[in-house]
Amino acid sequence: ATHSLFLLPGDGIGTEIMVEVEKLIAWTNQEQLTDFSTDTGLAGGAAYDQHQVAITDEDTQKALAADAVIFGAVGGPKWDNVPYEHRPEAALLRLRKEMAVFANLRPAICYPALADASSLKRELVEGLDILIVRELTGGVYFGEPKTITDLGDGQKRAVDTQVYETYEIDRIARVAFDLARTRSGKVHSADKKNVMKSGVLWDEVVKGVAKDYSDIELHHILADNAAMQLVRNPKQFDVMVTDNLFGDILSDVAAMLTGSLGMLPSASLGAPDPLTGKRKAFYEPVHGSAPDIAGKGIANPIAMIASVAMALRYSFGMIELATRIENAISAVLSDGLRTGDIAQDNRKTVGTEEMGAAVLAKLKA
Amino acid sequence: ATHSLFLLPGDGIGTEIMVEVEKLIAWTNQEQLTDFSTDTGLAGGAAYDQHQVAITDEDTQKALAADAVIFGAVGGPKWDNVPYEHRPEAALLRLRKEMAVFANLRPAICYPALADASSLKRELVEGLDILIVRELTGGVYFGEPKTITDLGDGQKRAVDTQVYETYEIDRIARVAFDLARTRSGKVHSADKKNVMKSGVLWDEVVKGVAKDYSDIELHHILADNAAMQLVRNPKQFDVMVTDNLFGDILSDVAAMLTGSLGMLPSASLGAPDPLTGKRKAFYEPVHGSAPDIAGKGIANPIAMIASVAMALRYSFGMIELATRIENAISAVLSDGLRTGDIAQDNRKTVGTEEMGAAVLAKLKA
Ligand SMILES: CC(C)[C@H](C(=O)O)[C@@H](O)C(=O)O
Ligand SMILES: CC(C)[C@H](C(=O)O)[C@@H](O)C(=O)O
Repeated sequence: ATHSLFLLPGDGIGTEIMVEVEKLIAWTNQEQLTDFSTDTGLAGGAAYDQHQVAITDEDTQKALAADAVIFGAVGGPKWDNVPYEHRPEAALLRLRKEMAVFANLRPAICYPALADASSLKRELVEGLDILIVRELTGGVYFGEPKTITDLGDGQKRAVDTQVYETYEIDRIARVAFDLARTRSGKVHSADKKNVMKSGVLWDEVVKGVAKDYSDIELHHILADNAAMQLVRNPKQFDVMVTDNLFGDILSDVAAMLTGSLGMLPSASLGAPDPLTGKRKAFYEPVHGSAPDIAGKGIANPIAMIASVAMALRYSFGMIELATRIENAISAVLSDGLRTGDIAQDNRKTVGTEEMGAAVLAKLKA
Repeated sequence: ATHSLFLLPGDGIGTEIMVEVEKLIAWTNQEQLTDFSTDTGLAGGAAYDQHQVAITDEDTQKALAADAVIFGAVGGPKWDNVPYEHRPEAALLRLRKEMAVFANLRPAICYPALADASSLKRELVEGLDILIVRELTGGVYFGEPKTITDLGDGQKRAVDTQVYETYEIDRIARVAFDLARTRSGKVHSADKKNVMKSGVLWDEVVKGVAKDYSDIELHHILADNAAMQLVRNPKQFDVMVTDNLFGDILSDVAAMLTGSLGMLPSASLGAPDPLTGKRKAFYEPVHGSAPDIAGKGIANPIAMIASVAMALRYSFGMIELATRIENAISAVLSDGLRTGDIAQDNRKTVGTEEMGAAVLAKLKA
């Protein structure tokens, strides 16, 4: 095989929607549109149940060796009380860190057929197309110290540390500016420089990088105001670059605006290898493992399928096939097919399998 | 005088809207509804221009001595390049810390007359009434170290530190639970315990406090999900308690949902004095100094006036007068009066002074 994919379905609906990905890949391989080898591992609660860790060293090695990791989702109430270092999310955090996939791309696109599903007024979200570029391997997620200390007398002190170095900000800013060149040429950089020293450095470095991109319009915005403005008038934004924690929140707000959380993929990319130009890459839907609907066969597989399209685009340069898949998704929606999360009057509600099959049928057509 | 108010109009529209507060207080004093002494100080850029600091020691002392501080807003492009420790926001941060007003109450109320001004669909926000209880004197805002270090070779390292101790979480949780008792009896506690140790401690302490409030329903929610759910279906929330940084963002999102940012007041309260029961208190509108419309006489004074109503309620136990003011505001809106920020077809757009006068007229009637 030319390219290797490592599949980590994870927990909850993760396993169900990954099945649709496997069918898709089987077909693209069979049609010789791709030449993928695939291997499957365990992550999150599924790994904990078998190995008492969120992900094994062996599966982590496989993720590091693969050309791309396709990840489902992790977590669920079953594992609410496992030891902290083995909680399902630890799989995600370990993979992000060890794969060094510092650039998390989260598109928030409002599918025209779904504009009414947004809680915002249609005119504010119709045609919305924002790209949040979130720093993913630094900040308060990984900074040390990160401790809880017993002070006696029933008192404890918890500490988390937000750390950013110049090079970390520089490289994520360049990703954002490069992507802006392929879009509207506008970047908003969000931080809390009025309160945080990391915000001061963030802003300073981003402004420095901007000098290398005189064709790009750079706007500074405070993170709290960014959250407000996303709600007030999201179409003012194109690319927004921000740190790990603000990116976590702002990308979720942006995703929710579209009314189509079950439709949104994401990509996490590492630095290009200096020799081969290859970059480690990790693709996953924006939504979670949705324990409440898991096992019912009703989850929306589209974000998961769209994550594969993103992999084709960003890891394998197969832009045409990526676009074909994205168009197939749009076509299925235009035909009126809906999973439960995006159900609408006068539209047909289908399950995971039927939706996956419909996308595949469009591709075959 | 029985009670002392210290007025800090600040910058931008802060000074214009404070004028309407002064008129209101002059009238309540004259009618012997209140017996307030007032004094006025400088904060933010206004203080910097005169004293090269964001707030002087003298004005800080006055704030500490007053029964309540009524604050306008600070900041503006004029002071974008003042030294970091003297930037306008430093006044706010200093007062919060020295007054030890750890409990920031931010109601997000959707005025029925303004439901259409929200970017959300009317049915999602009509009747909305959320209270965000934000921890205000701890967390990443004040934790040490908070530094930028030069590493040489053009590299710097910035560090901010999120610190929470048990007692800080305990006291803010009690404020939230106490307030929930006067409302729907439901509290959501938002943190990132899946990533942050401070979130783990936060959740542990809040759950401990909940044992003293068996009549209150406590729900845990991850901060990123809280932001999403606020956008998706805000009416599921009543009281939400969260830390300083998440509170900054979530309260702004909640405020923006209402479509009436210019209408929303906030209160920041200290611990009751063990002898007198009095608590230091700081009242301010949720909106900022709006440099773009400053000096034009068009700013909305309602959030500022509503901040005085909050002071009457929380600092002086004058519930009846507070309610009268709040009703006067609603009545003026029902009459169709609007400032520019909430302008609507078929409604009369008025300036700051006219709006202030209209509220006062309703009170007099
Ligand atoms: C599951 C969690 C650790 C994760 C994060 O906080 O980054 C998630 O919210 C995300 O955005 O991918
Ligand atoms: C002005 C700024 C320091 C402040 C904060 O971050 O707390 C503001 O955003 C607020 O919410 O009161």
